[in-house]
Amino acid sequence: MQSGRLHNFSAGPGTLPLPVLESAREELPVYKGTGASVMEISHRSPEYIQIENSARDRLRSLLGLTDEWHILFLGGGASMQFHQVPLNFLHSDGQAAYLLTGAWAKKAHAEAVRIGHGRIVASSADSNFNYIPDSSLWNLDSNDAYLHYTSNNTIYGTQFRNTPYVNCPLVCDASSDFLSRPIELDRYGLIYAGAQKNIGPAGVTVVLIRDSFLQIRKSKLPTMLDYGTHAAKCFNTPPVYAVYLVEKVLAWLEELGGISEIQATNRKKADLLYRTIDGSEFYRGTAETKSRSQMNVTFRLAKEDLESVFIQQAREHGLLALKGHRSVGGMRASIYNACQMESVEILVEFMRDFEQRNG
Amino acid sequence: MQSGRLHNFSAGPGTLPLPVLESAREELPVYKGTGASVMEISHRSPEYIQIENSARDRLRSLLGLTDEWHILFLGGGASMQFHQVPLNFLHSDGQAAYLLTGAWAKKAHAEAVRIGHGRIVASSADSNFNYIPDSSLWNLDSNDAYLHYTSNNTIYGTQFRNTPYVNCPLVCDASSDFLSRPIELDRYGLIYAGAQKNIGPAGVTVVLIRDSFLQIRKSKLPTMLDYGTHAAKCFNTPPVYAVYLVEKVLAWLEELGGISEIQATNRKKADLLYRTIDGSEFYRGTAETKSRSQMNVTFRLAKEDLESVFIQQAREHGLLALKGHRSVGGMRASIYNACQMESVEILVEFMRDFEQRNG
Repeated sequence: MQSGRLHNFSAGPGTLPLPVLESAREELPVYKGTGASVMEISHRSPEYIQIENSARDRLRSLLGLTDEWHILFLGGGASMQFHQVPLNFLHSDGQAAYLLTGAWAKKAHAEAVRIGHGRIVASSADSNFNYIPDSSLWNLDSNDAYLHYTSNNTIYGTQFRNTPYVNCPLVCDASSDFLSRPIELDRYGLIYAGAQKNIGPAGVTVVLIRDSFLQIRKSKLPTMLDYGTHAAKCFNTPPVYAVYLVEKVLAWLEELGGISEIQATNRKKADLLYRTIDGSEFYRGTAETKSRSQMNVTFRLAKEDLESVFIQQAREHGLLALKGHRSVGGMRASIYNACQMESVEILVEFMRDFEQRNG
Repeated sequence: MQSGRLHNFSAGPGTLPLPVLESAREELPVYKGTGASVMEISHRSPEYIQIENSARDRLRSLLGLTDEWHILFLGGGASMQFHQVPLNFLHSDGQAAYLLTGAWAKKAHAEAVRIGHGRIVASSADSNFNYIPDSSLWNLDSNDAYLHYTSNNTIYGTQFRNTPYVNCPLVCDASSDFLSRPIELDRYGLIYAGAQKNIGPAGVTVVLIRDSFLQIRKSKLPTMLDYGTHAAKCFNTPPVYAVYLVEKVLAWLEELGGISEIQATNRKKADLLYRTIDGSEFYRGTAETKSRSQMNVTFRLAKEDLESVFIQQAREHGLLALKGHRSVGGMRASIYNACQMESVEILVEFMRDFEQRNG
């Protein structure tokens, strides 16, 4: 680790690649030959347009997005998408399907219900969201405008292993596993992701929207909440600096070898952690094995009263932000793309050592 | 100017104080003793909460905001406020007053019309928005829920000299002159400002809302667009890094002596530029004298065909972003808070020299 940097397992805003931060530092207070920083130039300037275009090109190349996909960089956070999706696509006399697999999925559903019939097709609320409901039990219906799901559940440490296969377009909140693995684009109408987990700082939400899906949106929408506004042109000032950092993260990911490479590394990181948890009676995972997330590894101690000691000693050991969300308790290691294998190895070493001292 | 920094007259995103950028640079890739940058820590962490609280405290102190004012840091840009304001405060059978003094005011009005009766009380569209309509001619009505106006019109170089005095609460888009002068808070219900002109980078919008005004908003609003959501608590991840930079800009402004001090400097900068324009037949201002902005000085050359040469040579002289908006033409010098007197002096020198060479 570079001097002063610690091993950061924050659930989000999460750790970013060090080369990205170093490059941003180099470009303060002057970006290349422009005479100003990136924060201080017009979003209509050739320099900024080049950055945004480059971010789009890299995303297209990394995910294999054809021209039928629009790429938007919006402000307001993924939470705004909870409203914007049904506002655009759920008619007041229509219906849309929602999979309730966690707190964010519930919030997305709550906004749909304000607009039309947001149907719950399955829920794991009965078991504190510690599993992904089996698709054979989903209550599907051919009249759904779309099926909304949360591909990875940050709080509960669960993740869809497979892309849902249904008769309507998928809409996905991919905030916490975007670009961690390939996306089967054919099934989707819209994918959104707040940047602050896998692809950048908080303040920008990437929205991928298929043109044929965009075209069936409702009319007379508020300008800023109409996806068509942003697909047509740069309507207002985007979150310039956040987009600039996203572009750097995408370049870093390309450099690493792209999605398949990062997916392999992510799998190794998660496997090592889950093996450590499963190989001991001292630790236990909170999510059902077949629903476990490769991004957020949630676990508890058999001796729950030692958990705060674990978190405190880990902190002293340079392992940051391991406290689990209050609705699950215990520990959570968020191991997004930018979390290094080295950090996971040091965490595992610490876990073994902690067990030895307290087991 | 620090090596590589040029004189930046960008209309927005605009120039930021150099000490702010240097301090941000210093805190990359590690913020104080945290082991990570500000972009990589939880928005629920004590470190970030301290930053946001400090930004609020500084704003309260700079503007004299009492506890009856909520201070929100929202994503989505000021353009989202064009929708959010009428969504919260304009009933479908109600009415609200709009002053049309420029492109942004028109856009705000257009969003109100989608929701209820957005009445135009005055407009300067008849003269390409080069003046602020005299208040004695406003078509006021005692049933208006609020009067919305744009305190400074970036494109047209006009600005309200005085706070409107009407019988309903004011709602103000103060994006391009926020914190450049004191605000007569008593008359307002809500004030919003995109950060990227006077107080920070693009990506965060500061919203000040009086509690008594907040309480009369409509019910059953989409969660993210209900001002009450954000007044009650930190609902979702804020644009962390943008808020962090705003906090630094506020600290810089306090250090300078606060609002009255910056107002005096702003006046000196604008006076020097307008004197230079008025003192010569070679230049002419585009805004009516009594409506001139202290933030955006718009001017043209008597010989309009020389304007592109002026802009090009200014650029070579280290004077950036002087091209006027296409709807006015000519030149625009945006001289926001962070634009130094020195930059204006060098611009004026260049203007005199250019006149001598081409007059």
